[in-house]
Amino acid sequence: MKKVLFATTALIATASVAAADVRISGYGRFGLDYNDANDRAVNGVSKTTITSRLRLQFDMSAETDAGVAFDARFRAQAESRDNTPGGAAFNGARFGVSYQGFRVNVGNIIGAVENMPGTYLETRTAGIGIDGASFYSHVGNVNNEFFNWDAYSSAGTGVNGVEFIYSTGGFTGHVSYSTRNGAVASDRIGVMGAYTFGDWTIAAAHQSSDAMWEDKTLVSVAGDLGQFGVRLAYADNDGISKWGIYGNMDIGSASNLLVFYTDESAVDAADVLAGRGDNRDNVAGSNANEGGSYGIHYSYDLGGGASLEAGYRRASNDNDTFQAGVYFSF
Amino acid sequence: MKKVLFATTALIATASVAAADVRISGYGRFGLDYNDANDRAVNGVSKTTITSRLRLQFDMSAETDAGVAFDARFRAQAESRDNTPGGAAFNGARFGVSYQGFRVNVGNIIGAVENMPGTYLETRTAGIGIDGASFYSHVGNVNNEFFNWDAYSSAGTGVNGVEFIYSTGGFTGHVSYSTRNGAVASDRIGVMGAYTFGDWTIAAAHQSSDAMWEDKTLVSVAGDLGQFGVRLAYADNDGISKWGIYGNMDIGSASNLLVFYTDESAVDAADVLAGRGDNRDNVAGSNANEGGSYGIHYSYDLGGGASLEAGYRRASNDNDTFQAGVYFSF
Amino acid sequence: MKKVLFATTALIATASVAAADVRISGYGRFGLDYNDANDRAVNGVSKTTITSRLRLQFDMSAETDAGVAFDARFRAQAESRDNTPGGAAFNGARFGVSYQGFRVNVGNIIGAVENMPGTYLETRTAGIGIDGASFYSHVGNVNNEFFNWDAYSSAGTGVNGVEFIYSTGGFTGHVSYSTRNGAVASDRIGVMGAYTFGDWTIAAAHQSSDAMWEDKTLVSVAGDLGQFGVRLAYADNDGISKWGIYGNMDIGSASNLLVFYTDESAVDAADVLAGRGDNRDNVAGSNANEGGSYGIHYSYDLGGGASLEAGYRRASNDNDTFQAGVYFSF
Repeated sequence: MKKVLFATTALIATASVAAADVRISGYGRFGLDYNDANDRAVNGVSKTTITSRLRLQFDMSAETDAGVAFDARFRAQAESRDNTPGGAAFNGARFGVSYQGFRVNVGNIIGAVENMPGTYLETRTAGIGIDGASFYSHVGNVNNEFFNWDAYSSAGTGVNGVEFIYSTGGFTGHVSYSTRNGAVASDRIGVMGAYTFGDWTIAAAHQSSDAMWEDKTLVSVAGDLGQFGVRLAYADNDGISKWGIYGNMDIGSASNLLVFYTDESAVDAADVLAGRGDNRDNVAGSNANEGGSYGIHYSYDLGGGASLEAGYRRASNDNDTFQAGVYFSF
Repeated sequence: MKKVLFATTALIATASVAAADVRISGYGRFGLDYNDANDRAVNGVSKTTITSRLRLQFDMSAETDAGVAFDARFRAQAESRDNTPGGAAFNGARFGVSYQGFRVNVGNIIGAVENMPGTYLETRTAGIGIDGASFYSHVGNVNNEFFNWDAYSSAGTGVNGVEFIYSTGGFTGHVSYSTRNGAVASDRIGVMGAYTFGDWTIAAAHQSSDAMWEDKTLVSVAGDLGQFGVRLAYADNDGISKWGIYGNMDIGSASNLLVFYTDESAVDAADVLAGRGDNRDNVAGSNANEGGSYGIHYSYDLGGGASLEAGYRRASNDNDTFQAGVYFSF
Repeated sequence: MKKVLFATTALIATASVAAADVRISGYGRFGLDYNDANDRAVNGVSKTTITSRLRLQFDMSAETDAGVAFDARFRAQAESRDNTPGGAAFNGARFGVSYQGFRVNVGNIIGAVENMPGTYLETRTAGIGIDGASFYSHVGNVNNEFFNWDAYSSAGTGVNGVEFIYSTGGFTGHVSYSTRNGAVASDRIGVMGAYTFGDWTIAAAHQSSDAMWEDKTLVSVAGDLGQFGVRLAYADNDGISKWGIYGNMDIGSASNLLVFYTDESAVDAADVLAGRGDNRDNVAGSNANEGGSYGIHYSYDLGGGASLEAGYRRASNDNDTFQAGVYFSF
């Protein structure tokens, strides 16, 4: 679904256009979001609102005579949640150099933990429903520290890091690094390895951070068995463990049904005793999102890049959401 | 003048590209604005300044196998008025689904009242001069409540509404709805109907709003008689009535001359007695923009999407503006 | 490397597409910046950081039947310096009308002084290294008043001015004007003339401003002698004189090496005595950037629009920077 803008001369002569181009792609998705955390009397928001996103992505590239490829990307993304629409703004840029199986990115990097297979749902939104429903399905999201790892930011500037990715055969290795300004360096280092053999993919990732609560280790195993997909994932999130089980199946030629269940442990008592519980709303043996989350998602392919998407999930904090709508890419 | 970016494969193979694309279009307009409300000694702005706008619009679309079309739109628009230039920012996105004569939009909707034929001027700017000159020509703009109906916002996020439009033969019907966050629902509902028979189009629209001064009813009749165009419009704006008469004629093969006159009533005495006059700068039998507005506009087609545009208008608040410049679309 | 989006019909019929189009182009550049002014203990920034920019430029145009061309431009540019990444935002728009050798621009104008040949370095960044290293190499940048002339702004809205440019044969003449809002007019007027004969180009420019420290006169002479380039430039910056000598040479088929030296005088004693020294950090016979700056830059062309760029410069305020990275256009 990618678009390519050919150099002028390409259409009127035979000169190569591989050297440099701009590709424009993206997607739109919109639908209704029922969220029982919303209530006009409480937070001024109706229980049912429009949720939507329009993403327009620009991918630029150039290739040297020796076959080294340079590329860069940014996005402009308009989003509406809880009846609060936003105008699109460009995010931070990611720059890359690649040659054969090697790639180096700088800027708004992907991040090693973020890039690990077997962590996001096998849906178009990578979560439940139309907007992902807060991604309780991800084993790295625990307590009040969601997405506390280096990851490509679609709406912000990202972490301004650097990363190295190498792929060969079924193997991918990934190392990422970022640092924050300040009198004392606060760094994040991520490493990830994944291997696909036949229908199965195993993966593991680790982030080591100078900031509290950000050290984490994740492992996953996923099988893509034709009509069925099965997956297990586990993460130790700096003392809070979370595991998940996931399954999906094709129904007929156009439908897919997905279910998941995750279970999150209390904060490790040792961490609390060590005085590390301050900035979490927790006590020993408890945390805000402790317990089970589950969800179900249905997708129907309409052809031409469009599909119907609907999903329900109950989060471990007892929040219920149901979303249904459409998704189309271009 | 629309541009379409074809999918890569379309140029090198025979695969269909109807499924999904991105179109880029827009316009630029710039010229001089004489405005007697400006005065360096009073507001620090010269009486004559540059007025300009550059609009770049992105239209994305996809079509399902069954012929249902999905689309989305946003714009980035840079504008300068009163010698205060602004950088362009994307506005809120509008999403649509259409099938044969039916269309549903969500997000930054058009709005039923906004979409009514016979309300804006028959010029490229839809008003007088280069930037519309505040659109005193529109019968829905009265007193200090201009554009107080649901309408597509080019510079903001819009109302995050939903609307249904149906067209068949010469008929168009339109219903729009939006709500604002808050402890109590504040909604706007708009309805519009228009019918074209031969050279004539009649239209009517109504907005019912929970906010003060926003209930309004508009009617118009317009004739496109070859060389000549004539139009009448009337609106009851929650107690303030305004009518307008409009005419334009082609001169030779490239020129068009347009004139208009509108007359706005005082605030209805009953409204003021009922204590509804608080947030208007009015007293019984008076309002800030009461009385007549008139204007004249001249356009000369330069070919290739470009034209010269010039217009003068005197607003009912005695403000004079004269603007002249160029307009080109791409 | 420019891209053109053809009108839809152009690809399926023979209709002319000269009338109106949108071109997309730009560049990416990223690398490492060593700057001895940075220090975690002092300003929280590592001495070595990532410096990067991604520029996406939109050029719109239309042409009348009589051959008058209208055009407009804006850019979205994401930039990271000192480990502080920014999202891209559109800058102010520039509009133009051109016919044969004449051109009129309004809005975010180029500016007569900015457009003078022989003032910026003959490198892809127009300065030293990856991000220009503050452009100490420009003879118009003195003391604490860098870029105090009307110039196209890539990250802001620019000056909202108007300019006239005429080119014929080897001659270019340029007059620019801008004014700021306020009770008293504060204007800038710029004039520039340049002439190329054979391998040599001579140029001069002057800015007259109502703001302090902004009157300036620049002259340059540059020779492009095949393998070698030589250049001299001089400016009187409202009492501070600065001259520069520049040389570059091709090495083999893909490399170029450039060196420069500039020398900046103290503030003129008469200016200080006249009480004009207030808003400069200077005393009679001294200024913050007095003295010599020098630098060296190396470029290696990789083909396909990509190159390696590396440069060192020592500024007259004793700041050292060294930058190395890549640059690619699309």
